[in-house]
Amino acid sequence: MLKSQIKLYYKNITAEAVGSEHGIDRQQFESLAKKTAALIPGIKEEITGGATRYGLLPDNAQMAKNIKKMVRQFKDKCKNLVVLGIGGSALGNIALQTALNPYTYNLDDKGRKGPRLFVFDNVDPAQLGSFLDFIKPQLSKTIFNVISKSGQTAETASQFLIIRKILVDKFGPKGLKNHVIATTDLQKGTLRKIAAEADLPTLEVPDGVGGRFSVLSDVGLFSAAMCGINIDHLLAGARDMHTRVTNPDFFKNPAAICAAINWHYYNQGKKISVMFPYSYALYGLADWYRQLWAESLGKKSSLDGSEVFIGPTPVKALGTTDQHSQVQLYREGPNDKVFTFLEVQNHGKKLRIPSPPACARELDYLAGKDMGELLNAEKKATEYALLASNRPCLTVLFPQVNAYTVGQFIYLYEVTTSIAGALFGINTYDQPAVELGKVATFALMGKTGDEYEKMARQIKPLTEVDGEFLV
Amino acid sequence: MLKSQIKLYYKNITAEAVGSEHGIDRQQFESLAKKTAALIPGIKEEITGGATRYGLLPDNAQMAKNIKKMVRQFKDKCKNLVVLGIGGSALGNIALQTALNPYTYNLDDKGRKGPRLFVFDNVDPAQLGSFLDFIKPQLSKTIFNVISKSGQTAETASQFLIIRKILVDKFGPKGLKNHVIATTDLQKGTLRKIAAEADLPTLEVPDGVGGRFSVLSDVGLFSAAMCGINIDHLLAGARDMHTRVTNPDFFKNPAAICAAINWHYYNQGKKISVMFPYSYALYGLADWYRQLWAESLGKKSSLDGSEVFIGPTPVKALGTTDQHSQVQLYREGPNDKVFTFLEVQNHGKKLRIPSPPACARELDYLAGKDMGELLNAEKKATEYALLASNRPCLTVLFPQVNAYTVGQFIYLYEVTTSIAGALFGINTYDQPAVELGKVATFALMGKTGDEYEKMARQIKPLTEVDGEFLV
Repeated sequence: MLKSQIKLYYKNITAEAVGSEHGIDRQQFESLAKKTAALIPGIKEEITGGATRYGLLPDNAQMAKNIKKMVRQFKDKCKNLVVLGIGGSALGNIALQTALNPYTYNLDDKGRKGPRLFVFDNVDPAQLGSFLDFIKPQLSKTIFNVISKSGQTAETASQFLIIRKILVDKFGPKGLKNHVIATTDLQKGTLRKIAAEADLPTLEVPDGVGGRFSVLSDVGLFSAAMCGINIDHLLAGARDMHTRVTNPDFFKNPAAICAAINWHYYNQGKKISVMFPYSYALYGLADWYRQLWAESLGKKSSLDGSEVFIGPTPVKALGTTDQHSQVQLYREGPNDKVFTFLEVQNHGKKLRIPSPPACARELDYLAGKDMGELLNAEKKATEYALLASNRPCLTVLFPQVNAYTVGQFIYLYEVTTSIAGALFGINTYDQPAVELGKVATFALMGKTGDEYEKMARQIKPLTEVDGEFLV
Repeated sequence: MLKSQIKLYYKNITAEAVGSEHGIDRQQFESLAKKTAALIPGIKEEITGGATRYGLLPDNAQMAKNIKKMVRQFKDKCKNLVVLGIGGSALGNIALQTALNPYTYNLDDKGRKGPRLFVFDNVDPAQLGSFLDFIKPQLSKTIFNVISKSGQTAETASQFLIIRKILVDKFGPKGLKNHVIATTDLQKGTLRKIAAEADLPTLEVPDGVGGRFSVLSDVGLFSAAMCGINIDHLLAGARDMHTRVTNPDFFKNPAAICAAINWHYYNQGKKISVMFPYSYALYGLADWYRQLWAESLGKKSSLDGSEVFIGPTPVKALGTTDQHSQVQLYREGPNDKVFTFLEVQNHGKKLRIPSPPACARELDYLAGKDMGELLNAEKKATEYALLASNRPCLTVLFPQVNAYTVGQFIYLYEVTTSIAGALFGINTYDQPAVELGKVATFALMGKTGDEYEKMARQIKPLTEVDGEFLV
């Protein structure tokens, strides 16, 4: 199994495939290769000790050991694992679970190889309230993994305060440590202080790795390991991909090619990037990619300080489902999108389609076929239809969906993002625009301080409902 | 409860709110009003007997009676209801369930007021296979509702053939009618023939109503009613909204205003339309809207036959979750989006945030607040941050989420779509571009006939992997 490599297939972005107006010709591709190849050595440096250090995670053997130790300590006592986190502290966890455990995992009390997993990345009282009503009778078998680098994220903090009180009311202040694992900064911050005071077991949000690049750390791997996912295979996949995506030969480097093609199309006015898995299991990865791409590449300023307001808009779609929802637009709407299909060659499970009844011979063509064959035929049919409308298509081919190939995919897209950021000439690793909304939330929630009070006065007339514009 | 109306709030698209480059000034708005108002009487005609007839559904009292009769017949015998459908035969069902039943509905065997609901809108052998393994021991208490106008949709047909065989193997050919309800054309088609032969109970996919406009028919309402949702309130909401959205006075018509604003912005280069509910319950409606908007407005040809390739790209986002994923891009990326928030004033459930421990005073500002207050403050904070970057924002205000307000919302967006289609000058109700992919699927699956065989020969070289472009 560990031999199976995912591959990037890019013939259907060429001028031969989608015409000269929308395709990339050989000369353009050579020039993309030259520009991009020059960036690869710098990216290799950058991700293993420069601006970010996510490239060190797959080699960190101690990390996997610590996680497995924590799993051994908690797994037997745990029938429900509840992750409290948001953004990079949730999307990776959801993506791994969706990819690598069955669709019915949480329902199937007999087949499941670990606790049920719930990930809460919101502050919705209807949603969380209904969950709390449901989980309260089962608290003694429930573990909460609260994930926040600082502990000050309003969503995670407020979820945690609610759950902390429920647990303290039930098990006393000393019982907290049997039900909460804090994943946070190693040294400092609000959650670190709370954990120290309550003697909570802790895991680490690593330094120098932004949230959206942290899935292959304690952040994403602990919940995965608890639910029976092979984290060694995930890391091995990432390690093996590291070799491929740091190859200075552009033509052998899938991240470089993927980044270059996306950058080229953005500059040509195709500002929407659709990730289109033909596998429900991979749909969570499309959502994870959505954050990775949007936060990393959506930037107002370039590195030289000029105002650019750039960034492709990532969109998740699901095959075949979205053929009956989005493909009309994808073919006949403006030609402003690049499509990246995720195609699975072996779906693991076979489902044979039986013969139709005699009154429905028009369905005979399905009889005896495997459902996976139909799914892949629909992918090819959709790609063919898009090509007929001159829409460029990439495909990432998965021999199968397993921890090793998913680890490869994650690392492929992390490095693709780093290279794309370098091509765009922006800082890939910050997110300055998120700050204003956080401060405004503090202000509206009545946090004390002149700054907040002044801002609250500013916001109210802008967002309070004015009858003139209400219909 | 039946008095509570949803409202459209549009101050934050004005030039005062987002500046003259990205806002709409009074003169522009007057001119939009004039152009749009002229279309309203025609739309009223169109939807109640013209090109489409979805406008007749809310008044159809017999429909609700039939559905309730079918529910009475099956509800007691049914612990699991499985919908087999795709596109308009699935997205509305999912949206109603997500909006109007608790998040834990399928898990909560004690609290639930109906069968568990599963909706399968794909042909993924891993996903469906794991579900079949799970459901097989419970077949005697499971009902399948197969929904297809023609019965020839490849996805629904193949799912149905698999399940049909499982049921016949277990209950014999005569047992099928106790476990399958067919929602299909009243007179003709493959599924109608199969239903007649096996004596299946049937419901109707109404004539003259496209799939994406069919949620308020048997298609969407039967599964809702089975799960305890008040379909009379849904229909009452749609009826009351009908009065508002057929009002020829533009300034009193929320659908006209919403359509006009969206159309204006598309023409100004804002080609992405983000629906951004701040309520998990409403997230499924954003996905339903995605189909409605994309298939209706994504068109190559205008009504006069000229080539236009138009259509806004709908995107679903979720607050607060996507603040930590997309807002960086939404503020600092290209100013190419219109945002439509869905805001809920009363979340139904209160969750008080307790005080933090003494070591974490920085969280004091949360203490004693209700989680719904935080959620709504985050919405306002995000809106404020977007306005600070001159991004236009609409809000649909829900007094609360219930069947009556959800019925209003559905009808509001259906008519908004009809008016937008008229403004764009396209056929809102067809989907010609979906056809090629369907035929190509037939071809690749080996359907016999010269047309298919020829096409299969065409497709293969285009979609088969060519080593030169594989990395």
